[in-house]
Amino acid sequence: MFSNSDPIRRLSNYRRVLCKLRALGFERFVSDNLGGALDISPAQVRKDFADYGLTGNKKGGYDVRDLIEKLNKILGKNELQKIIVVGCGGMGRTLMGYNGFSGEGMKVVAGFDSNPSLIDPRAIIPIYDINDMPEYIQKEKIELAIMTVPESAASKVSEVLKGCHIKGILNFAPIMLKSSEECIIRNINIIHEMENIIYFARKIGNED
Amino acid sequence: MFSNSDPIRRLSNYRRVLCKLRALGFERFVSDNLGGALDISPAQVRKDFADYGLTGNKKGGYDVRDLIEKLNKILGKNELQKIIVVGCGGMGRTLMGYNGFSGEGMKVVAGFDSNPSLIDPRAIIPIYDINDMPEYIQKEKIELAIMTVPESAASKVSEVLKGCHIKGILNFAPIMLKSSEECIIRNINIIHEMENIIYFARKIGNED
Repeated sequence: MFSNSDPIRRLSNYRRVLCKLRALGFERFVSDNLGGALDISPAQVRKDFADYGLTGNKKGGYDVRDLIEKLNKILGKNELQKIIVVGCGGMGRTLMGYNGFSGEGMKVVAGFDSNPSLIDPRAIIPIYDINDMPEYIQKEKIELAIMTVPESAASKVSEVLKGCHIKGILNFAPIMLKSSEECIIRNINIIHEMENIIYFARKIGNED
Repeated sequence: MFSNSDPIRRLSNYRRVLCKLRALGFERFVSDNLGGALDISPAQVRKDFADYGLTGNKKGGYDVRDLIEKLNKILGKNELQKIIVVGCGGMGRTLMGYNGFSGEGMKVVAGFDSNPSLIDPRAIIPIYDINDMPEYIQKEKIELAIMTVPESAASKVSEVLKGCHIKGILNFAPIMLKSSEECIIRNINIIHEMENIIYFARKIGNED
Protein backbone atom coordinates (compact mmCIF):
# COMPACT_ATOMS: atom_id res chain seq x y z
CA MET A 1 0.00 0.00 0.00
CA PHE A 2 1.52 3.26 -1.17
CA SER A 3 0.42 5.16 1.93
CA ASN A 4 2.58 2.91 4.08
CA SER A 5 5.66 3.01 1.90
CA ASP A 6 5.91 6.80 1.66
CA PRO A 7 7.15 8.43 4.89
CA ILE A 8 6.01 11.94 3.99
CA ARG A 9 2.54 10.65 3.24
CA ARG A 10 2.51 8.93 6.65
CA LEU A 11 3.63 12.14 8.40
CA SER A 12 0.92 14.04 6.56
CA ASN A 13 -1.66 11.46 7.63
CA TYR A 14 -0.47 11.63 11.26
CA ARG A 15 -0.93 15.39 11.10
CA ARG A 16 -4.41 15.09 9.63
CA VAL A 17 -5.57 12.68 12.36
CA LEU A 18 -3.98 14.86 15.06
CA CYS A 19 -5.81 17.93 13.73
CA LYS A 20 -9.06 15.97 13.97
CA LEU A 21 -8.21 14.91 17.55
CA ARG A 22 -7.48 18.54 18.41
CA ALA A 23 -10.82 19.59 16.92
CA LEU A 24 -12.50 16.98 19.13
CA GLY A 25 -10.85 18.49 22.22
CA PHE A 26 -8.16 15.88 22.85
CA GLU A 27 -4.99 17.23 24.45
CA ARG A 28 -2.89 14.07 24.65
CA PHE A 29 -2.68 10.83 22.67
CA VAL A 30 -0.83 7.51 22.65
CA SER A 31 1.08 6.72 19.43
CA ASP A 32 -0.40 3.21 19.23
CA ASN A 33 -3.84 4.75 18.73
CA LEU A 34 -2.54 6.85 15.86
CA GLY A 35 -1.36 3.79 13.93
CA GLY A 36 -4.68 2.03 14.46
CA ALA A 37 -6.61 4.94 12.95
CA LEU A 38 -4.44 4.80 9.81
CA ASP A 39 -3.85 1.07 9.40
CA ILE A 40 -0.14 1.57 10.17
CA SER A 41 1.68 -0.68 12.67
CA PRO A 42 2.62 0.76 16.09
CA ALA A 43 6.26 -0.17 15.35
CA GLN A 44 6.19 1.90 12.13
CA VAL A 45 4.67 4.88 13.99
CA ARG A 46 7.40 4.68 16.65
CA LYS A 47 10.10 4.43 13.96
CA ASP A 48 8.72 7.46 12.10
CA PHE A 49 8.55 9.46 15.33
CA ALA A 50 12.18 8.56 16.08
CA ASP A 51 13.37 9.19 12.48
CA TYR A 52 11.76 12.64 12.27
CA GLY A 53 12.49 13.81 15.81
CA LEU A 54 8.88 13.72 16.99
CA THR A 55 9.74 13.57 20.68
CA GLY A 56 7.81 14.46 23.82
CA ASN A 57 6.28 11.17 24.97
CA LYS A 58 5.34 11.39 28.64
CA LYS A 59 3.04 9.57 30.98
CA GLY A 60 -0.34 9.92 29.30
CA GLY A 61 1.18 10.16 25.83
CA TYR A 62 2.19 12.98 23.49
CA ASP A 63 0.87 16.53 23.56
CA VAL A 64 -1.41 16.91 20.51
CA ARG A 65 -0.72 20.61 19.85
CA ASP A 66 3.04 20.19 20.28
CA LEU A 67 3.10 17.29 17.79
CA ILE A 68 1.03 19.21 15.23
CA GLU A 69 3.45 22.13 15.53
CA LYS A 70 6.45 19.82 14.98
CA LEU A 71 4.77 18.18 11.98
CA ASN A 72 3.87 21.61 10.56
CA LYS A 73 7.56 22.54 10.61
CA ILE A 74 8.62 19.30 8.91
CA LEU A 75 5.92 19.53 6.25
CA GLY A 76 6.27 23.27 5.66
CA LYS A 77 2.76 24.05 6.91
CA ASN A 78 3.94 26.87 9.16
CA GLU A 79 4.47 29.21 6.21
CA LEU A 80 2.44 29.82 3.06
CA GLN A 81 3.76 27.73 0.17
CA LYS A 82 3.44 29.82 -2.99
CA ILE A 83 2.97 27.85 -6.22
CA ILE A 84 2.94 28.95 -9.86
CA VAL A 85 1.10 27.04 -12.60
CA VAL A 86 2.89 26.88 -15.95
CA GLY A 87 0.54 26.10 -18.84
CA CYS A 88 -2.96 27.51 -18.40
CA GLY A 89 -5.01 25.20 -20.61
CA GLY A 90 -7.86 23.16 -19.15
CA MET A 91 -5.81 21.22 -16.59
CA GLY A 92 -3.79 24.27 -15.58
CA ARG A 93 -6.85 26.43 -14.97
CA THR A 94 -8.54 23.59 -13.07
CA LEU A 95 -5.55 23.35 -10.74
CA MET A 96 -5.45 27.15 -10.36
CA GLY A 97 -9.03 26.91 -9.07
CA TYR A 98 -8.48 23.78 -6.95
CA ASN A 99 -9.82 24.56 -3.50
CA GLY A 100 -7.91 21.76 -1.75
CA PHE A 101 -4.73 23.84 -1.51
CA SER A 102 -5.91 26.56 0.87
CA GLY A 103 -6.56 24.26 3.83
CA GLU A 104 -3.06 22.82 3.45
CA GLY A 105 -1.08 26.06 3.55
CA MET A 106 -0.56 26.14 -0.22
CA LYS A 107 -1.60 28.84 -2.66
CA VAL A 108 -1.42 29.20 -6.43
CA VAL A 109 -0.28 32.79 -6.84
CA ALA A 110 0.02 33.07 -10.64
CA GLY A 111 -0.23 31.23 -13.93
CA PHE A 112 1.97 31.54 -17.02
CA ASP A 113 1.25 30.74 -20.65
CA SER A 114 2.64 31.48 -24.11
CA ASN A 115 -0.83 31.87 -25.65
CA PRO A 116 -1.74 35.61 -25.68
CA SER A 117 -5.48 34.82 -25.53
CA LEU A 118 -5.04 33.17 -22.11
CA ILE A 119 -3.03 35.98 -20.54
CA ASP A 120 -5.06 37.91 -17.97
CA PRO A 121 -3.03 39.90 -15.42
CA ARG A 122 -6.21 41.23 -13.77
CA ALA A 123 -7.73 37.85 -12.90
CA ILE A 124 -8.02 36.87 -9.22
CA ILE A 125 -5.10 34.54 -9.89
CA PRO A 126 -3.31 36.47 -12.68
CA ILE A 127 -2.05 34.76 -15.83
CA TYR A 128 1.11 36.32 -17.26
CA ASP A 129 3.19 35.85 -20.39
CA ILE A 130 5.61 32.95 -19.91
CA ASN A 131 8.47 35.24 -20.96
CA ASP A 132 7.88 37.23 -17.76
CA MET A 133 8.16 34.10 -15.60
CA PRO A 134 11.87 34.26 -14.63
CA GLU A 135 11.50 37.84 -13.36
CA TYR A 136 8.34 36.91 -11.39
CA ILE A 137 9.97 33.86 -9.81
CA GLN A 138 12.94 35.92 -8.66
CA LYS A 139 10.87 38.86 -7.41
CA GLU A 140 8.28 36.76 -5.56
CA LYS A 141 10.83 34.17 -4.35
CA ILE A 142 8.83 31.27 -5.87
CA GLU A 143 10.22 27.79 -5.22
CA LEU A 144 7.34 25.56 -6.38
CA ALA A 145 5.71 25.03 -9.77
CA ILE A 146 3.00 22.88 -11.30
CA MET A 147 3.66 22.11 -14.97
CA THR A 148 0.60 21.57 -17.17
CA VAL A 149 2.17 22.28 -20.55
CA PRO A 150 1.92 20.05 -23.66
CA GLU A 151 4.46 17.25 -24.02
CA SER A 152 6.31 19.15 -26.74
CA ALA A 153 7.03 22.08 -24.38
CA ALA A 154 7.69 20.11 -21.17
CA SER A 155 11.39 19.55 -21.48
CA LYS A 156 12.21 23.16 -22.33
CA VAL A 157 9.90 24.60 -19.65
CA SER A 158 11.41 22.36 -16.97
CA GLU A 159 14.89 23.59 -17.93
CA VAL A 160 13.72 27.22 -17.66
CA LEU A 161 12.23 26.49 -14.21
CA LYS A 162 15.44 24.80 -13.04
CA GLY A 163 17.40 27.77 -14.39
CA CYS A 164 15.23 30.01 -12.18
CA HIS A 165 16.18 27.88 -9.14
CA ILE A 166 12.71 26.39 -8.71
CA LYS A 167 13.16 23.63 -6.11
CA GLY A 168 10.06 21.51 -6.69
CA ILE A 169 7.92 20.68 -9.73
CA LEU A 170 4.71 18.68 -10.01
CA ASN A 171 4.64 17.65 -13.69
CA PHE A 172 1.40 16.72 -15.43
CA ALA A 173 2.91 16.71 -18.94
CA PRO A 174 3.02 13.15 -20.33
CA ILE A 175 6.81 12.91 -20.19
CA MET A 176 8.97 11.53 -17.38
CA LEU A 177 11.12 14.37 -16.04
CA LYS A 178 13.97 13.49 -13.69
CA SER A 179 14.78 15.15 -10.39
CA SER A 180 18.20 16.69 -9.89
CA GLU A 181 20.05 17.56 -6.70
CA GLU A 182 18.68 21.10 -6.89
CA CYS A 183 15.12 20.31 -7.98
CA ILE A 184 12.72 17.54 -6.96
CA ILE A 185 10.23 16.59 -9.68
CA ARG A 186 7.20 14.32 -9.29
CA ASN A 187 5.39 13.16 -12.40
CA ILE A 188 1.65 12.50 -12.68
CA ASN A 189 0.96 10.68 -15.94
CA ILE A 190 -2.75 10.05 -16.35
CA ILE A 191 -2.29 7.84 -19.44
CA HIS A 192 0.22 5.63 -17.62
CA GLU A 193 -2.12 5.32 -14.63
CA MET A 194 -4.99 4.31 -16.92
CA GLU A 195 -2.75 1.81 -18.77
CA ASN A 196 -1.89 0.19 -15.46
CA ILE A 197 -5.55 0.01 -14.48
CA ILE A 198 -6.55 -1.42 -17.87
CA TYR A 199 -3.84 -4.09 -17.68
CA PHE A 200 -4.96 -5.33 -14.26
CA ALA A 201 -8.67 -4.92 -15.05
CA ARG A 202 -8.18 -7.18 -18.09
CA LYS A 203 -6.50 -9.79 -15.89
CA ILE A 204 -9.53 -9.70 -13.58
CA GLY A 205 -11.73 -10.15 -16.64
CA ASN A 206 -9.76 -13.12 -17.91
CA GLU A 207 -9.95 -14.92 -14.58
CA ASP A 208 -13.75 -14.94 -14.61
CA MET B 1 13.07 6.04 -11.03
CA PHE B 2 9.38 5.12 -11.12
CA SER B 3 9.42 4.35 -14.86
CA ASN B 4 11.88 1.53 -14.28
CA SER B 5 10.14 -0.01 -11.30
CA ASP B 6 6.73 -0.35 -12.95
CA PRO B 7 6.56 -3.15 -15.55
CA ILE B 8 3.39 -1.88 -17.24
CA ARG B 9 4.94 1.53 -17.65
CA ARG B 10 8.00 -0.12 -19.23
CA LEU B 11 5.82 -2.13 -21.65
CA SER B 12 3.95 1.05 -22.54
CA ASN B 13 7.25 2.84 -23.16
CA TYR B 14 8.52 -0.05 -25.32
CA ARG B 15 5.32 0.23 -27.37
CA ARG B 16 5.71 3.99 -27.75
CA VAL B 17 9.30 3.70 -29.02
CA LEU B 18 8.31 0.85 -31.36
CA CYS B 19 5.49 2.94 -32.84
CA LYS B 20 8.02 5.70 -33.48
CA LEU B 21 10.38 3.19 -35.14
CA ARG B 22 7.52 1.94 -37.32
CA ALA B 23 6.67 5.52 -38.31
CA LEU B 24 10.32 5.96 -39.34
CA GLY B 25 10.07 2.89 -41.56
CA PHE B 26 12.01 0.39 -39.43
CA GLU B 27 10.87 -3.22 -39.82
CA ARG B 28 13.20 -4.98 -37.35
CA PHE B 29 14.98 -3.98 -34.17
CA VAL B 30 17.39 -5.36 -31.57
CA SER B 31 16.14 -5.31 -27.97
CA ASP B 32 19.38 -3.76 -26.69
CA ASN B 33 18.60 -0.64 -28.73
CA LEU B 34 15.18 -0.40 -27.14
CA GLY B 35 16.62 -0.27 -23.63
CA GLY B 36 19.13 2.37 -24.64
CA ALA B 37 16.40 4.68 -25.93
CA LEU B 38 14.56 4.42 -22.60
CA ASP B 39 17.44 4.32 -20.12
CA ILE B 40 16.52 0.72 -19.20
CA SER B 41 19.20 -1.99 -18.99
CA PRO B 42 19.34 -4.64 -21.77
CA ALA B 43 18.95 -7.33 -19.07
CA GLN B 44 15.71 -5.73 -17.86
CA VAL B 45 14.36 -5.53 -21.42
CA ARG B 46 15.15 -9.22 -21.99
CA LYS B 47 13.51 -10.14 -18.67
CA ASP B 48 10.36 -8.16 -19.52
CA PHE B 49 10.19 -9.78 -22.97
CA ALA B 50 10.46 -13.23 -21.36
CA ASP B 51 7.99 -12.42 -18.55
CA TYR B 52 5.30 -11.12 -20.91
CA GLY B 53 5.77 -13.63 -23.74
CA LEU B 54 7.23 -11.14 -26.21
CA THR B 55 8.89 -13.75 -28.41
CA GLY B 56 10.02 -13.77 -32.02
CA ASN B 57 13.71 -12.85 -31.85
CA LYS B 58 15.47 -13.95 -35.05
CA LYS B 59 18.66 -13.07 -36.84
CA GLY B 60 18.34 -9.33 -37.41
CA GLY B 61 16.16 -8.85 -34.32
CA TYR B 62 12.42 -8.68 -33.62
CA ASP B 63 9.70 -7.77 -36.11
CA VAL B 64 8.49 -4.26 -35.17
CA ARG B 65 4.86 -4.71 -36.28
CA ASP B 66 4.57 -8.12 -34.63
CA LEU B 67 5.87 -6.75 -31.32
CA ILE B 68 3.52 -3.77 -31.41
CA GLU B 69 0.60 -6.15 -32.01
CA LYS B 70 1.64 -8.32 -29.03
CA LEU B 71 2.04 -5.26 -26.80
CA ASN B 72 -1.35 -3.92 -27.96
CA LYS B 73 -2.97 -7.16 -26.76
CA ILE B 74 -1.22 -7.04 -23.38
CA LEU B 75 -2.03 -3.36 -22.82
CA GLY B 76 -5.60 -3.56 -24.16
CA LYS B 77 -4.88 -1.22 -27.09
CA ASN B 78 -6.54 -3.52 -29.63
CA GLU B 79 -10.03 -2.58 -28.44
CA LEU B 80 -11.54 0.76 -27.41
CA GLN B 81 -11.39 1.22 -23.63
CA LYS B 82 -14.56 3.01 -22.55
CA ILE B 83 -14.28 5.17 -19.44
CA ILE B 84 -16.89 7.01 -17.38
CA VAL B 85 -16.12 10.07 -15.26
CA VAL B 86 -17.92 10.25 -11.92
CA GLY B 87 -18.06 13.79 -10.54
CA CYS B 88 -18.28 16.50 -13.21
CA GLY B 89 -16.88 19.51 -11.37
CA GLY B 90 -13.81 21.30 -12.69
CA MET B 91 -11.42 18.34 -12.59
CA GLY B 92 -14.04 15.92 -13.96
CA ARG B 93 -14.89 18.13 -16.91
CA THR B 94 -11.20 18.76 -17.60
CA LEU B 95 -10.58 15.01 -17.81
CA MET B 96 -13.68 14.53 -19.98
CA GLY B 97 -12.08 16.95 -22.43
CA TYR B 98 -8.54 15.56 -22.11
CA ASN B 99 -7.30 14.91 -25.63
CA GLY B 100 -4.53 12.52 -24.58
CA PHE B 101 -6.93 9.55 -24.34
CA SER B 102 -7.88 9.20 -28.01
CA GLY B 103 -4.39 8.36 -29.29
CA GLU B 104 -4.13 5.63 -26.65
CA GLY B 105 -7.30 3.70 -27.45
CA MET B 106 -9.22 5.21 -24.53
CA LYS B 107 -12.44 7.22 -24.64
CA VAL B 108 -14.53 8.97 -22.01
CA VAL B 109 -18.08 7.99 -23.03
CA ALA B 110 -20.13 9.68 -20.28
CA GLY B 111 -20.03 11.69 -17.09
CA PHE B 112 -22.21 11.36 -13.98
CA ASP B 113 -23.05 13.87 -11.28
CA SER B 114 -25.59 14.40 -8.51
CA ASN B 115 -25.86 18.15 -9.19
CA PRO B 116 -28.87 18.76 -11.51
CA SER B 117 -27.29 21.92 -12.94
CA LEU B 118 -24.38 19.90 -14.36
CA ILE B 119 -26.51 17.22 -16.02
CA ASP B 120 -26.52 17.53 -19.81
CA PRO B 121 -27.51 14.38 -21.74
CA ARG B 122 -27.17 16.20 -25.08
CA ALA B 123 -23.53 17.24 -24.67
CA ILE B 124 -20.92 15.66 -26.98
CA ILE B 125 -19.89 13.62 -23.94
CA PRO B 126 -23.24 13.39 -22.10
CA ILE B 127 -23.51 14.02 -18.35
CA TYR B 128 -26.22 11.97 -16.64
CA ASP B 129 -27.75 11.80 -13.17
CA ILE B 130 -25.58 9.64 -10.90
CA ASN B 131 -28.66 7.59 -10.00
CA ASP B 132 -28.75 6.36 -13.61
CA MET B 133 -25.14 5.18 -13.45
CA PRO B 134 -25.67 1.50 -12.51
CA GLU B 135 -28.04 0.97 -15.43
CA TYR B 136 -25.66 2.72 -17.85
CA ILE B 137 -22.66 0.68 -16.66
CA GLN B 138 -24.55 -2.56 -17.18
CA LYS B 139 -26.04 -1.59 -20.55
CA GLU B 140 -22.79 -0.21 -21.99
CA LYS B 141 -20.59 -2.87 -20.36
CA ILE B 142 -18.37 -0.22 -18.73
CA GLU B 143 -15.38 -1.55 -16.76
CA LEU B 144 -13.37 1.63 -16.12
CA ALA B 145 -14.13 4.78 -14.14
CA ILE B 146 -12.36 7.99 -13.19
CA MET B 147 -13.55 9.35 -9.83
CA THR B 148 -13.41 13.12 -9.39
CA VAL B 149 -15.94 13.48 -6.57
CA PRO B 150 -15.43 15.40 -3.30
CA GLU B 151 -13.74 13.56 -0.43
CA SER B 152 -17.06 13.27 1.42
CA ALA B 153 -18.64 11.28 -1.44
CA ALA B 154 -15.63 9.19 -2.46
CA SER B 155 -16.13 6.19 -0.22
CA LYS B 156 -19.80 5.75 -1.09
CA VAL B 157 -19.27 6.27 -4.84
CA SER B 158 -16.45 3.71 -4.92
CA GLU B 159 -18.74 1.16 -3.25
CA VAL B 160 -21.45 1.83 -5.85
CA LEU B 161 -18.90 1.37 -8.65
CA LYS B 162 -17.63 -1.87 -7.14
CA GLY B 163 -21.24 -3.03 -6.79
CA CYS B 164 -21.66 -2.43 -10.54
CA HIS B 165 -18.62 -4.68 -11.21
CA ILE B 166 -16.38 -1.85 -12.37
CA LYS B 167 -12.91 -3.41 -12.63
CA GLY B 168 -10.67 -0.36 -12.56
CA ILE B 169 -10.87 3.08 -10.93
CA LEU B 170 -8.56 6.08 -11.17
CA ASN B 171 -9.35 8.06 -8.04
CA PHE B 172 -8.63 11.80 -7.77
CA ALA B 173 -10.59 12.29 -4.54
CA PRO B 174 -8.21 13.08 -1.64
CA ILE B 175 -8.81 9.79 0.14
CA MET B 176 -6.80 6.57 -0.20
CA LEU B 177 -9.09 3.89 -1.63
CA LYS B 178 -7.89 0.29 -1.57
CA SER B 179 -7.98 -2.19 -4.44
CA SER B 180 -9.85 -5.45 -4.00
CA GLU B 181 -9.53 -8.72 -5.91
CA GLU B 182 -12.34 -7.62 -8.22
CA CYS B 183 -11.37 -3.97 -8.65
CA ILE B 184 -8.00 -2.28 -9.09
CA ILE B 185 -7.86 1.29 -7.78
CA ARG B 186 -5.05 3.78 -8.31
CA ASN B 187 -5.09 7.00 -6.30
CA ILE B 188 -3.80 10.37 -7.48
CA ASN B 189 -3.60 12.71 -4.51
CA ILE B 190 -2.41 16.14 -5.61
CA ILE B 191 -2.03 17.45 -2.05
CA HIS B 192 0.13 14.46 -1.06
CA GLU B 193 2.29 14.96 -4.16
CA MET B 194 2.76 18.65 -3.30
CA GLU B 195 3.54 17.79 0.35
CA ASN B 196 6.27 15.45 -0.81
CA ILE B 197 7.70 18.09 -3.12
CA ILE B 198 7.58 20.75 -0.40
CA TYR B 199 9.33 18.46 2.09
CA PHE B 200 12.24 17.73 -0.26
CA ALA B 201 12.35 21.30 -1.61
CA ARG B 202 12.78 22.56 1.98
CA LYS B 203 15.64 20.11 2.50
CA ILE B 204 17.32 21.51 -0.63
CA GLY B 205 16.79 24.99 0.78
CA ASN B 206 18.34 24.12 4.14
CA GLU B 207 21.44 22.68 2.54
CA ASP B 208 22.28 25.96 0.77
